[in-house]
This record gives sequence, C-alpha cells and structure tokens, in this order.
Amino acid sequence: MKVVIVGCGRVGARVAMLLDHAGHDVSVVDTESRAFRRLAASFSGNTVIGTGIDEDILRAAGIENADAFVAVTNGDNRNIMAAQVARHIFNVETVVCRIYDPVREDAYRRLGLVTVCPTATIAAQVLEHVLSAASGSGVTEGLEG
Amino acid sequence: MKVVIVGCGRVGARVAMLLDHAGHDVSVVDTESRAFRRLAASFSGNTVIGTGIDEDILRAAGIENADAFVAVTNGDNRNIMAAQVARHIFNVETVVCRIYDPVREDAYRRLGLVTVCPTATIAAQVLEHVLSAASGSGVTEGLEG
Repeated sequence: MKVVIVGCGRVGARVAMLLDHAGHDVSVVDTESRAFRRLAASFSGNTVIGTGIDEDILRAAGIENADAFVAVTNGDNRNIMAAQVARHIFNVETVVCRIYDPVREDAYRRLGLVTVCPTATIAAQVLEHVLSAASGSGVTEGLEG
Repeated sequence: MKVVIVGCGRVGARVAMLLDHAGHDVSVVDTESRAFRRLAASFSGNTVIGTGIDEDILRAAGIENADAFVAVTNGDNRNIMAAQVARHIFNVETVVCRIYDPVREDAYRRLGLVTVCPTATIAAQVLEHVLSAASGSGVTEGLEG
C-alpha cells in the first residue's frame, strides 16, 4: 500500500521505517531536511521537503494514490489541518492524526478523525504503574473511593 | 499515598491532577514556574521550582516519604538520572521513568527501571490504525510476508 507520512520526528521516522521494511511504498514529508537523518540508510521510500498542508507538496509525495495518510508533526493544528486536507480534498481512505491536547483530540475524534493522543495514553500508562504498585503494597487509600 | 512528579509538562500535569483528584498527596517539581499553569486551580498538591536531579529539591518535594516517583521531563537523560536518584539514594519503592528513545528505554527496562516509551507506544498505535484499515479494505500486500 502507499502511505504518506507528514512529520519525520521520532514517531514519523519509526512508522516510516516499519512500513518500508514491511514492503509498503512510503513517502515522508518534513519542513526540515535534517529530520530525514532519523531514517536509517536502508529506507527505500521517498522524502519530500515542505509543509504537509501544501497541496503541491502532498501531490509530490504521491497523496493522489495514497491508501493511508499519517500526520505526526509536533503541532496539533498542523496535524489537524493536514489530516483534513488529506481526507476531504484528496479523499484518502485512512487518515491518522496525532493530537497532543486531549480536549481537542476528543473533539476531533467525535468528528470522525482517527486520532492518537500521546498525552492521554502515556499519562494512563504512568498512572497504571503507580497505582498497581500501590495496590500491590497495600497502599490503596483514595483509589477505590 | 505520597507521589513526587518531576516535570510539569502535559503528561506530568495530567498525572498530578488525576492523582490529586483521587485524594493522593502530590508534589510536582519543574525548573520553570510557568509550567505549573498547566495545573488546574483545583490542584491541592505542592509545587517546587528546581531540577529533579537535585537532592535538596527532591527533599523539599517530600521524596523521603514518597511511595512513588514519576520522571516525565522532556529530557530522557534527566528522567533517567532523576529516576536513579529516587530509586537508589531515596529508596522510593515505585519509580516510573519516561524515555523517548526506544533503544535506551529497552536498555533501562532490562536494568529494572519501570519505563514508558511514547515513541514506541504511539508508533504502534498509528501502525495499528493504518494496517487494520488496510486489511479491512483488502489492501494487504506486504503484511503477511
């Protein structure tokens, strides 16, 4: 399948490498060329320098034939805008959008966007570790209330 | 229970609010006083300005009586150091450490640290969304290989 990823940070690069390694056709877009250094030398996909809300840049990345689109820049607004362009202008079937702000993530999820929220996910993991240790050691005041 | 949290970013503030709301005794440490604005007005815990690898700062935050310690600054090295100080100098029973770099996260987890890795977790969530949509639509080349 053809996947366009906007944002070549830690998560974008990791997803790109994993999909590339699995034999998919991957294009990664980032405004900074040095971001592409996060991709291993074995990466066989394409890289495009530019912003992921620019339709020409997205066309250069092959969005017109994309089966999936992933927006993982560090900005919630940029991710939301890029995801909406991919979904509504280019009709990409699968669009995944990272939103750090749990309030906005909830709102856009209700509007039908497929979202991931690191803040809520990681906070939940931390809480689980803290509270499971507490219940294991008998220190459980305030937990069952 | 008494919990000390180092780093009042999105995740630190969220964990602090949730534990505070559940009736726990929470102290949050951050080098920047404005970071504490992320805490809601209803937060009834303590805030301490300073670095989470300074033993005096950690004592001021009440680490000597802490049941749990959470290191969630934006720096992997700072989190690892703070977690090790909490575990080995102050003998805190439960220590949770955020490490963005999956390679270091794996290494420190093997060494016995309780870790959370946003990079690996969020990349896995994104992949799951992309690939489950692909298998649902019959576009599965490269997935089962």
